[in-house]
Amino acid sequence: MSTAITFRPIGHVENAFDEPVGPDNMRGAESRIILDPEMTSGLTGLERYQRIMIVFYFHLIEDYTLLQHRRGDPTQPERGVFALRSPSRPNPIGVTTVDLLEIEGNVLRVRGLDAVNGTPVLDIKPA
Amino acid sequence: MSTAITFRPIGHVENAFDEPVGPDNMRGAESRIILDPEMTSGLTGLERYQRIMIVFYFHLIEDYTLLQHRRGDPTQPERGVFALRSPSRPNPIGVTTVDLLEIEGNVLRVRGLDAVNGTPVLDIKPA
Repeated sequence: MSTAITFRPIGHVENAFDEPVGPDNMRGAESRIILDPEMTSGLTGLERYQRIMIVFYFHLIEDYTLLQHRRGDPTQPERGVFALRSPSRPNPIGVTTVDLLEIEGNVLRVRGLDAVNGTPVLDIKPA
Repeated sequence: MSTAITFRPIGHVENAFDEPVGPDNMRGAESRIILDPEMTSGLTGLERYQRIMIVFYFHLIEDYTLLQHRRGDPTQPERGVFALRSPSRPNPIGVTTVDLLEIEGNVLRVRGLDAVNGTPVLDIKPA
């Protein structure tokens, strides 16, 4: 029915998590965002210790349901997917605000990103 | 080079703005988000007066540059697109947190959305 919208990653995530280990564990850890080198000048003006928003693609997600238990816990009541942060959603887009620790060329070191190793990054914005 | 990622809108924005009038003017106004009716149960658990995050597609944008003047003001120094909230960006995705005023069936009434009439909505998340 509705038109498809196509994006291309601007870079990807590198970190120690090859699979999800729960957002609380992942958010304490550091990740590197490797930006496509030709986009490096787009980082001009970002400052260390600033908070930035990372928009990314939950590339491991294959399906979703409109009603889900929070964090997959069956003791929790079911809620609608739009009332949850679950990665299993109609458009599996993640949005997380992180601390920018360092920029070196096309590489950003951040703390607080709940995205696994290899995750495609769609956008970076000031938080 | 990198793989294309395809999304489909979950709904669209209706409001009085057929073209952008500046984010400060738009953020004070009310908009309606018309969700695709088959997704209505995904709203279960959202509450009036909650803050929610709207992820949308800047569908009027055709191009971008990596360095831009803030709000197109040439008296401002150029900054990188990833240090700006400009809609003209490699992947023209908008992320705005709004006040949820009312839910009626598949329609959400919100205040604070800086998206024009007809904007495709990609996701709704608790803020």
